[in-house]
Amino acid sequence: MKISLAHGSGGKLTHNLIKELFLTNFLNPLLKPLTDSAIINLIPQTLVSDYQMTDKVCGNQETVGTKGTKIAFTTDSYTVTPIFFPGGDIGKLAVCGTVNDLSVMGAKPLYLSCSYVIEEGLDYETLVKITKSVSETAKNSGVQIATGDTKVVEKGKGDKIFINTSGIGICEYEFKEIQIGDKILLNGGIGEHEIAILTARESLGLETEIKSDCASLWNLISQVLKSSREVKFMRDPTRGGIATVLNEVTENKDFGILLYEEKIPVKEEVKGVCALLGFDPLYLANEGKVIIVVASEDADKLVNVLRGHSLGKDAQVIGEVVKTPAGKVYLKTKVGGTRIVDMLIGEQLPRIC
Amino acid sequence: MKISLAHGSGGKLTHNLIKELFLTNFLNPLLKPLTDSAIINLIPQTLVSDYQMTDKVCGNQETVGTKGTKIAFTTDSYTVTPIFFPGGDIGKLAVCGTVNDLSVMGAKPLYLSCSYVIEEGLDYETLVKITKSVSETAKNSGVQIATGDTKVVEKGKGDKIFINTSGIGICEYEFKEIQIGDKILLNGGIGEHEIAILTARESLGLETEIKSDCASLWNLISQVLKSSREVKFMRDPTRGGIATVLNEVTENKDFGILLYEEKIPVKEEVKGVCALLGFDPLYLANEGKVIIVVASEDADKLVNVLRGHSLGKDAQVIGEVVKTPAGKVYLKTKVGGTRIVDMLIGEQLPRIC
Repeated sequence: MKISLAHGSGGKLTHNLIKELFLTNFLNPLLKPLTDSAIINLIPQTLVSDYQMTDKVCGNQETVGTKGTKIAFTTDSYTVTPIFFPGGDIGKLAVCGTVNDLSVMGAKPLYLSCSYVIEEGLDYETLVKITKSVSETAKNSGVQIATGDTKVVEKGKGDKIFINTSGIGICEYEFKEIQIGDKILLNGGIGEHEIAILTARESLGLETEIKSDCASLWNLISQVLKSSREVKFMRDPTRGGIATVLNEVTENKDFGILLYEEKIPVKEEVKGVCALLGFDPLYLANEGKVIIVVASEDADKLVNVLRGHSLGKDAQVIGEVVKTPAGKVYLKTKVGGTRIVDMLIGEQLPRIC
Repeated sequence: MKISLAHGSGGKLTHNLIKELFLTNFLNPLLKPLTDSAIINLIPQTLVSDYQMTDKVCGNQETVGTKGTKIAFTTDSYTVTPIFFPGGDIGKLAVCGTVNDLSVMGAKPLYLSCSYVIEEGLDYETLVKITKSVSETAKNSGVQIATGDTKVVEKGKGDKIFINTSGIGICEYEFKEIQIGDKILLNGGIGEHEIAILTARESLGLETEIKSDCASLWNLISQVLKSSREVKFMRDPTRGGIATVLNEVTENKDFGILLYEEKIPVKEEVKGVCALLGFDPLYLANEGKVIIVVASEDADKLVNVLRGHSLGKDAQVIGEVVKTPAGKVYLKTKVGGTRIVDMLIGEQLPRIC
């Protein structure tokens, strides 16, 4: 078997690769939840060896018990083409994506690493522009670039620039368990990032006004977490779209998710491109969206919190957690029917990330 | 200006890129020391916001003062060609390299992220072999793969596989300041990694028995740190070799470093290839070596500690810290002369990392 682009699409083949290859080889309790960030409990007394210490890790170790500093740790490599697109560039994306992966774990993003793999011959000015974008986005997101690395590969062995960012955040929230009746919230229109990238490629010959929704979500998410203690789950629906995230939520669970098609925000222009190219917006990548599962009684309050923020003006309750059919995502269509929304198999689309 | 391979060589152009572009844009106190890992002080009470907490970060916050959990954070992207070479492969290298970057900061390596950028068409079996190598090396190094990511790029837009690993360690040692008279130690022969990679390329038509020294150094380093409280500095001389590391140590300082050429361990076969191709072994990359600066009185003790370990059998005192000429690295040659050992300018060699 050869690795295909579909193995990186975020759909079923990616999922299988992770399960069959990575989970079996890297098996450890941190990886098992398959979330975008690992949650690490830095428990001082079990980590510290018996010799020299620079600092007592905690002032009074005896009182600490099994408690430590819980941090979130995440990584992502960004390979988007083109590297500049309406609404952003690879530098902005690399910071926002990793900040968002920490944020959805309820962790305040603090420190990012930034590693470039540059193709020989890249214009220095391009590198400066991207670096300024990384720097500005980090500043606006409240994170520091703590460490970095630069590699240059021969022309034809890379694609202008790839950026890896890894991130550390400190956990501030513990999610409760999902229950039947919980509501599914979304902070705005889907598919804008993926459509912006696709139409930015000259080869497609499409012109639209759609901009990527690429944005750092921590500020929005921290307001959500301040407003409710009944948040059960959050995830940013990037590769594979909201369909893939919700399938991951229901997989092997004794509940299902029912989506209301008419409530899912999709901009008219996104709908237009989807109709033209035969795409389903549920599978399109987003870079400034968050799916929130919250107890029914707090749903309306959170929709108001979201709508009061510049990144959540079009927020909606898009679905609910249901008892049957368990383990599946169902869509109640506008015309009144229902259909299963499965995980993406193969590639729906040209590769964008 | 276009980015050239020399910008990634670890020499002067890399140095300039970091100083002029990255330090000016990402400026913050964590990056300033230009070490391979950032040292982060996770101080609970200043990080934790005033709302919900999953855990009290420390049992008794009032007693903590300004102390926190000091962690080291590092990142590296590995782009080595060929991906399998005598003594290792890109998976082993990606784990050892990042483990070593944490270790030389006196931090016990704990958690690694692992992110693949795979070129479309890679054999699945190759990916399995590399993944097993990552897994095995992580196990042997005592670290867990905490989080990961996979991207696939079109054929011709990558080079089989690039791996980024980022790492977190917990700081266990505080280095003292370098003083005149301190000794420079090295745990064995230089240049083996770079020569192994070069001769593994068929195009060079060279055959040698040299294997990469690629190894995880934490075990060796932890024994060194247990044996002396007078260690001033450690660094793994990878890209740019020991010449570059020592130039970084002396740059803008009021001391210099004198190296004794006859004491620097270089295998005969490495010397042979260097003579043939006109390379200076001082600039060759290593992946299982550590430079240690230690107070003179502990130097012999540490040499014995190193020689008692399988990764330090050929350890030597290779030089000393001198008053003049300050800011420079000098080599006392075998024939009795001295010459300045400058930073690498441009590229001495074909790119190997």
